[in-house]
Amino acid sequence: MNLLTMTDSLLSKYRGRKFAVEYWDGTRKVYGTEDSKRFFTIKLKTKSALKNIVFRGSLGFGEAYMNGEIEVEGDLADCVSIPSEPYFQLFRPSVREKLKYIRMYLKNRNTLKGSRKNIHSHYDLGNDFYRLWLDKNLQYTCAYFEYPEQGLEEAQINKMEYVCRKLELKPGESVIETGCGWGGFAIYAAKHYGVKMTSYNISHEQIQYAKEWAKRENLEDRVTFIEDDYRNATGTYDKYVSIGMLEHVGLDNYETFSKTIDERLKDKGLGLIHSITKVFPAPTDAFTAKYIFPGGLIPALSEIIPHLENRKFTIIDIDNLRLHYARTLHFWRERFEKNVDKVREMFDERFVRMWRVYLSGAMTSFSDGPMTLSQILFAKGKVNNVRLNRRAFYDTNYEDPHWQYWT
Amino acid sequence: MNLLTMTDSLLSKYRGRKFAVEYWDGTRKVYGTEDSKRFFTIKLKTKSALKNIVFRGSLGFGEAYMNGEIEVEGDLADCVSIPSEPYFQLFRPSVREKLKYIRMYLKNRNTLKGSRKNIHSHYDLGNDFYRLWLDKNLQYTCAYFEYPEQGLEEAQINKMEYVCRKLELKPGESVIETGCGWGGFAIYAAKHYGVKMTSYNISHEQIQYAKEWAKRENLEDRVTFIEDDYRNATGTYDKYVSIGMLEHVGLDNYETFSKTIDERLKDKGLGLIHSITKVFPAPTDAFTAKYIFPGGLIPALSEIIPHLENRKFTIIDIDNLRLHYARTLHFWRERFEKNVDKVREMFDERFVRMWRVYLSGAMTSFSDGPMTLSQILFAKGKVNNVRLNRRAFYDTNYEDPHWQYWT
Repeated sequence: MNLLTMTDSLLSKYRGRKFAVEYWDGTRKVYGTEDSKRFFTIKLKTKSALKNIVFRGSLGFGEAYMNGEIEVEGDLADCVSIPSEPYFQLFRPSVREKLKYIRMYLKNRNTLKGSRKNIHSHYDLGNDFYRLWLDKNLQYTCAYFEYPEQGLEEAQINKMEYVCRKLELKPGESVIETGCGWGGFAIYAAKHYGVKMTSYNISHEQIQYAKEWAKRENLEDRVTFIEDDYRNATGTYDKYVSIGMLEHVGLDNYETFSKTIDERLKDKGLGLIHSITKVFPAPTDAFTAKYIFPGGLIPALSEIIPHLENRKFTIIDIDNLRLHYARTLHFWRERFEKNVDKVREMFDERFVRMWRVYLSGAMTSFSDGPMTLSQILFAKGKVNNVRLNRRAFYDTNYEDPHWQYWT
Repeated sequence: MNLLTMTDSLLSKYRGRKFAVEYWDGTRKVYGTEDSKRFFTIKLKTKSALKNIVFRGSLGFGEAYMNGEIEVEGDLADCVSIPSEPYFQLFRPSVREKLKYIRMYLKNRNTLKGSRKNIHSHYDLGNDFYRLWLDKNLQYTCAYFEYPEQGLEEAQINKMEYVCRKLELKPGESVIETGCGWGGFAIYAAKHYGVKMTSYNISHEQIQYAKEWAKRENLEDRVTFIEDDYRNATGTYDKYVSIGMLEHVGLDNYETFSKTIDERLKDKGLGLIHSITKVFPAPTDAFTAKYIFPGGLIPALSEIIPHLENRKFTIIDIDNLRLHYARTLHFWRERFEKNVDKVREMFDERFVRMWRVYLSGAMTSFSDGPMTLSQILFAKGKVNNVRLNRRAFYDTNYEDPHWQYWT
């Protein structure tokens, strides 16, 4: 039996949403049993495209798509998860393929030097590129939507506001931020909450941008941007915040990560970690590891929490914003496609198609897959003048009572 | 150097809140450095009382107090944690003492039969006893206070309401409850949310009471109380809830516990676990294990979450209500002391003093110690018509928008 016959016979048993495959020899077949508005056609222009999918999973799919051996009619986001379906996964990657993955993961480990290289490869693609499709505050993390129809610009401001409220930021407080992107949160918090921000980042392009931004806003006395690794941070602070950095830390470093928080945070301080998480522990998808986030690892809550408990932090609140991230990615994709000609000019067609797989795959992994977005709020030591509930996260008119019996 | 001299010299180095010790020989000394409104005097009437504290920790303190060898002037709740202070803990329990603990923990394991025995010893002390100091809905779990001055009766109704809102209960839905106490939550949910409750409990006295209560309320068609172990539950349900049972399950059974939830909950169902948790993993305090909750074990989040992840449940929300529990215990103690003469009549002075140590110690462990109260809300499978945020937990007038893009 040849590959095409075998694939066809396996897919014929598929019980999910309907989709079509157009093979290189011109035959077209519809698989699946459920009618769906998310119907798509995947066109396999070469036999090697099919080989890539069945033997090399998401990495094979991604590369074949990047090379133009695969085209999709309909939404790529609905298609990207198909190679992960069990019916496509009968063939496990070969030992040689697996060894390649392991070499790649090892090469990209997050030593102080390795992290710089990993971060450089993604975040230093050029500020102009990211400005094409992010919001104007350059928030490259999950937005927070107050109602389903809200736009991205507003939702990104909401996200910053949401974090400030959770941390109960007060004028004059000192805040350490590890992983600050282009500085949007630091500038927002300094401007609207009067805190003194000290923000770390190892992306050279981002930190340069952040410094200039602070200057333009006349906030240089309240915001300090430092181009250095979180592990080299110094001083102690009233509050700790990290938005979208844990994804780059790597499991090996979680003990160091939580130790750093413990050392930088004053007693009775609050901290917040905002990170993508997985519903259960699993290694990084090979396409993502190779092309998008070298050294990246999305943890499950069970992989983070023991390290917070080791430091005796009290977990106050864990909030799951997974569909907010799916919606954020919807907007990023929309803006990316609107500016796709400019992206093609900056890079090339292969890059465009790579970024498409990345954004589409990410969106689907939040809406249909195992990805979630967690905001973990915690306290160092016994913090007893806390809020009675979380209504003030949402409702600015709420009187926001605090406990007072044990202070 | 004798025991008294040694203790005195150690306590003289104590840096915490001031307190006094009155020794059996009549000498009185003040220790600590911080002035405090929580000042107390601990009277050690015998040398053996001191021996018990320094060699046998909380168990020695508890037993010496039960026997009347210790009296406390001031609040017992402020005193109970003192034996756990490092200055009192220079002497570790002897090997013989430790072996006794291990024997006790082994004897009280939560097999199907063991659980019945363990639960019987606490919850079958008599409904009349619990009615003396619980609220009128007999909620023997953490209440939820909307403002600091709210009373217990209202706060316990709030707690039931809070759980119903988190689970988005709708008329006609089926709900399985494991560990239902006297049935208060089941009756509330059936009455106010129109759900069909199936509630399990192995306490004979409690389940008898619950059945009669349902009858009085004419809710027998909507509430089924079953005297059986959660592990023997059958059927499948739209929602799952467990309020204050996990504390009795024991680490050995967490895999079975989460498997039971998985088997009983329909796909796309929501579940809620309400349980005392610890800031970090630690064994059960020996006094509690011996006198109050044989077989009990308070888990850390890191001990629960892996089992939920194994079942691929998506964690939606983790809420920490620790100071709500401290406040709840404040009211229970107040009511207990108001009815202490009746308790003494039902049992004896030793029981009264035992219960005092228990309630006081529990209160302090929430306000000053490592205990927290977690409500963990989770979903089975991809539930995408979820709320955008948690405001509706608090605000009944809120329009409560749901996501709709991925359903």
